[in-house]
Amino acid sequence: MRTIKDRKVVLVGTGSVGMSMAYTLLMANGIDELVLIDVNEGKAKGEAMDLSHGLPYAPNSKMVIKSGGYEECKDANIIVVTAGANQKPGQSRLELTAINTRIMKEICEEIKASGFNGVLVIASNPVDVLTCVAQEVTGLPHNQVFGSGTSLDSARLRFLMSDYLGINPRSIHAYILGEHGDSSFVSWTNCYVGAKSLLDYIDEKGKDFNDLLDIYKEVRDAAYEVIELKGVTNYGIGLSLNKIVLAILNNEDIVIPVSAYQNGEYGQKGLYIGVPAIICRKGVKEVIKLPLNEVDQGKFDKSCESLKKVFTETALPVIQEV
Amino acid sequence: MRTIKDRKVVLVGTGSVGMSMAYTLLMANGIDELVLIDVNEGKAKGEAMDLSHGLPYAPNSKMVIKSGGYEECKDANIIVVTAGANQKPGQSRLELTAINTRIMKEICEEIKASGFNGVLVIASNPVDVLTCVAQEVTGLPHNQVFGSGTSLDSARLRFLMSDYLGINPRSIHAYILGEHGDSSFVSWTNCYVGAKSLLDYIDEKGKDFNDLLDIYKEVRDAAYEVIELKGVTNYGIGLSLNKIVLAILNNEDIVIPVSAYQNGEYGQKGLYIGVPAIICRKGVKEVIKLPLNEVDQGKFDKSCESLKKVFTETALPVIQEV
Amino acid sequence: MRTIKDRKVVLVGTGSVGMSMAYTLLMANGIDELVLIDVNEGKAKGEAMDLSHGLPYAPNSKMVIKSGGYEECKDANIIVVTAGANQKPGQSRLELTAINTRIMKEICEEIKASGFNGVLVIASNPVDVLTCVAQEVTGLPHNQVFGSGTSLDSARLRFLMSDYLGINPRSIHAYILGEHGDSSFVSWTNCYVGAKSLLDYIDEKGKDFNDLLDIYKEVRDAAYEVIELKGVTNYGIGLSLNKIVLAILNNEDIVIPVSAYQNGEYGQKGLYIGVPAIICRKGVKEVIKLPLNEVDQGKFDKSCESLKKVFTETALPVIQEV
Amino acid sequence: MRTIKDRKVVLVGTGSVGMSMAYTLLMANGIDELVLIDVNEGKAKGEAMDLSHGLPYAPNSKMVIKSGGYEECKDANIIVVTAGANQKPGQSRLELTAINTRIMKEICEEIKASGFNGVLVIASNPVDVLTCVAQEVTGLPHNQVFGSGTSLDSARLRFLMSDYLGINPRSIHAYILGEHGDSSFVSWTNCYVGAKSLLDYIDEKGKDFNDLLDIYKEVRDAAYEVIELKGVTNYGIGLSLNKIVLAILNNEDIVIPVSAYQNGEYGQKGLYIGVPAIICRKGVKEVIKLPLNEVDQGKFDKSCESLKKVFTETALPVIQEV
Repeated sequence: MRTIKDRKVVLVGTGSVGMSMAYTLLMANGIDELVLIDVNEGKAKGEAMDLSHGLPYAPNSKMVIKSGGYEECKDANIIVVTAGANQKPGQSRLELTAINTRIMKEICEEIKASGFNGVLVIASNPVDVLTCVAQEVTGLPHNQVFGSGTSLDSARLRFLMSDYLGINPRSIHAYILGEHGDSSFVSWTNCYVGAKSLLDYIDEKGKDFNDLLDIYKEVRDAAYEVIELKGVTNYGIGLSLNKIVLAILNNEDIVIPVSAYQNGEYGQKGLYIGVPAIICRKGVKEVIKLPLNEVDQGKFDKSCESLKKVFTETALPVIQEV
Repeated sequence: MRTIKDRKVVLVGTGSVGMSMAYTLLMANGIDELVLIDVNEGKAKGEAMDLSHGLPYAPNSKMVIKSGGYEECKDANIIVVTAGANQKPGQSRLELTAINTRIMKEICEEIKASGFNGVLVIASNPVDVLTCVAQEVTGLPHNQVFGSGTSLDSARLRFLMSDYLGINPRSIHAYILGEHGDSSFVSWTNCYVGAKSLLDYIDEKGKDFNDLLDIYKEVRDAAYEVIELKGVTNYGIGLSLNKIVLAILNNEDIVIPVSAYQNGEYGQKGLYIGVPAIICRKGVKEVIKLPLNEVDQGKFDKSCESLKKVFTETALPVIQEV
Repeated sequence: MRTIKDRKVVLVGTGSVGMSMAYTLLMANGIDELVLIDVNEGKAKGEAMDLSHGLPYAPNSKMVIKSGGYEECKDANIIVVTAGANQKPGQSRLELTAINTRIMKEICEEIKASGFNGVLVIASNPVDVLTCVAQEVTGLPHNQVFGSGTSLDSARLRFLMSDYLGINPRSIHAYILGEHGDSSFVSWTNCYVGAKSLLDYIDEKGKDFNDLLDIYKEVRDAAYEVIELKGVTNYGIGLSLNKIVLAILNNEDIVIPVSAYQNGEYGQKGLYIGVPAIICRKGVKEVIKLPLNEVDQGKFDKSCESLKKVFTETALPVIQEV
Repeated sequence: MRTIKDRKVVLVGTGSVGMSMAYTLLMANGIDELVLIDVNEGKAKGEAMDLSHGLPYAPNSKMVIKSGGYEECKDANIIVVTAGANQKPGQSRLELTAINTRIMKEICEEIKASGFNGVLVIASNPVDVLTCVAQEVTGLPHNQVFGSGTSLDSARLRFLMSDYLGINPRSIHAYILGEHGDSSFVSWTNCYVGAKSLLDYIDEKGKDFNDLLDIYKEVRDAAYEVIELKGVTNYGIGLSLNKIVLAILNNEDIVIPVSAYQNGEYGQKGLYIGVPAIICRKGVKEVIKLPLNEVDQGKFDKSCESLKKVFTETALPVIQEV
């Protein structure tokens, strides 16, 4: 008979970020199999057991959840990689980049060896650099590899604006652009409430534009603050990754800010960086080009240059090691 | 103990529009009681039975669904009115307006007498005029009364644009403004894909602006075509009303185009007409003012004048009858 | 790349039953395409348009909904047939059976010709007989063809017991067995509240067993009463069919009472009749054998004989016509 | 106007169990406010921020999530307590009980002082003893206080049986009874597949009853194994608590095994222990009495005695300290 093929998601890295996404996927429908891979095989097994125990109370009670090895990637539709070391006290960001590039390289060699040919989503940090690494190592087409980029930053922005304006974040259309990191920025002229320019709305309400700058600062510092308070950020990113995975599985053609390969849409080529893109079953269908004013274009270019430099000087040498 | 109060929705009019909404509400969570009122009491009873029979297979299996009289309005949180006659062959639109004004007046007198003080949503046609009637007769504050307006028209527009562009309708932000009827229009300069101007996007893609005009024509003629093909339109409007009811119940503060009372936001006062508005537990929280160009403002003013004329000449005399 | 295959459902018959199911499927996730087929092509087109217009407000906003011909069945995963004439005043049940057998035969010949090899669900009445017809004509394996059977009757029973006992219908496990029609029955010794015998529970509460008999009567007469009151029953059956379709799509292995092919599980062979069965991607995975007492077995046998007689005398001659 | 009252849940204890539940509640509808309380105020604040950042991608985007103090309990509908120490190496179970009794006492004194009069759900371990403590200290009616009890154990049982039998856990009706701990047991004669006795089903399939005993052993050891593998169990219990909270909020009248006050239903009085119960807005509406055979009744009595002894000897002295 014409059987319905299983829809299968593989998660590499069962830390708190990956597991928050995995937990959310239990609430979704249409996913048949979820495989957890971790260098700590016991951890992956324990997590799969713990998730499975909740199945009778989950909407998708017959989902198969298990731990496994990279051979599971062969017939997967989507792989999400959240594995990687966290920054240690005294460790520079570049040192971290070198370490995580090595981890990503090893993972992606395994993924490539498995024969995987689906969509690969990277969430490990520094995400923009590591997405480049993942594409280089797997050799998958650029559209089939992308990173979580500024999807979480943008969610934070929309939540804070929602709180400030008293409007549902679903009605606030705003993206953080650039690197998922300190050189990211908001292009305020491209933010909307419903279909109304945010700047006009703020003006009309007699509110101060400086409030927006404060909100952006809060977004930028949010990760640091949450990490200081609870040691890790996992729920916000878990929901962002869940959103991305479902967009792929359901072929949603929805606009989400992700770390997408640049082909000149914003004047830059040959790197991954956070921009709004249409996400479908093939990964990134199209980058949405927003008209940047001179200041914002400058910020974007600077963000790109910083990423390129890190990639060339820190990541590339690791990739090229034999 | 501090009991959780039931959340109660009353539907007046169990025709195919009302029932489609009612059926959708079974899929929602957070509604405890749904009461169906119809001048044909047997019909309302039969519909309540039919819906109830599906409860074991619905997410909200313990919802109470029943038919009843207007005394049920007293403690309702939301009332949706879909009752009204349909246009008959040979009958003019003004004749229909007079008939449905009379029906709406009777219903709203009953609602008023019940002591209802929640949010009243009107979906009967001509919806903009009848929403005015409902507010006049009940004397409820303007924000607590609004109509489905161009919510369905806007959904049709977004669906057709989604189909044309290959982008999820959730990422297309566009509203039909004005009367829910022939004088409605799209303000194309206020349409967005993600956070990008639709007109720029079309241009960039080398697509023809005339395609958009064709899409608008399709929207305008959609109701006529569906009615010719299947005799009625009910599913699209059912989902629109479901969206509105949930926005109220969950205090969503979400932007939806509805028939909202005008207080000068678009230069007009004292009537109900389709504009984007923030919907919350109190009904309309705020009208979102889009900047209209001269042509669009002209269309809006004309649409208002036409509605005012119908209200004054056809509806008002019926309201003022003793 | 390893593409995710579309999941496709075809509905044959866009009357109120079929359309209620179709409307519910918009709320589900994991269905990519829904095709409506009707002898009245305009009706199917209008319904597809009306459903599509609601997509921006539905959870599954990128689902493809369209009307089409039987060539659409070729790559469908599931076909649901709800087409058929309704009983007319003065028309005998046997006359109706002959008419609907002819309609089902024509439809199934088209389905067979398309090369369809998925799961075929029959909801047209008399459902048990017409499911036999569908299997005969298509020649599909018995497990790949089944009918809605007593799924709705069982839902009605559980709803009424829920109302009577003040317990969620999801915690009431009870099935109506036998023909979807007047010879159906409840095997009370096989009904449970949680994991407690219903009869013991009733006894413990000091309630009267006669109340249960009244509830069964209400179930048996429900269809007649709803039809008298509103002309048709569609929402309860729409939710039942939705439940069945999702069980197949998601490979749920869930127990639902359906019209399943008998292979001696209840002592009868070679016909379709209502029994609890495990539903999976291949259709009926297994019939659950409940231990019937002598009285219930007698009722079951009688129900089977009545169905066999109707099939042999009324349906078979129509199937064998050249 | 007749405003819709907010539905408010308070979580005390933002460890991994509490936070998993909190994260799941973001997926639900109908909850307006979630307040996190923790002795570590920064942790609670960080968790509230992290959850809030995901709101734009959650279904319930306008839910209010914040950290706070016990004054937030005053108008809460439900409080879930997950706070407590974990067992340390070398620490006896009784030592842990004494420590957590003290913590629970302090928390419940604060809850009482706030004027809370809703439903109080306890998930801290040893859960049956601490639920007694919570009821004693708050003085709330017995039905308004209950514990997560064997809800997770029962989910594990159903999952493992589902895996073994190839049947959806939703169609497997089986409960673990007794203490949430080593003296818990399955009453196999009260387990059902659909509405069929599990033992008969196993027998019919030619399967070995010893397999069931192995499954029970797996259930009993699951917590230990998961803790050994990943250090904590949180997702299974998170989903169990989510199920319980929604049953209360939506007044579901659904049967769930929880730690419920005994009033002689199983021959014991004056303690909390795991039994199936109907959960509604007032908490426990009714304990479902399953007929236990002599062996199972013996196990239940023994489990009760063990709990009573721990309560009297270890918890009560702590409660009575001034």
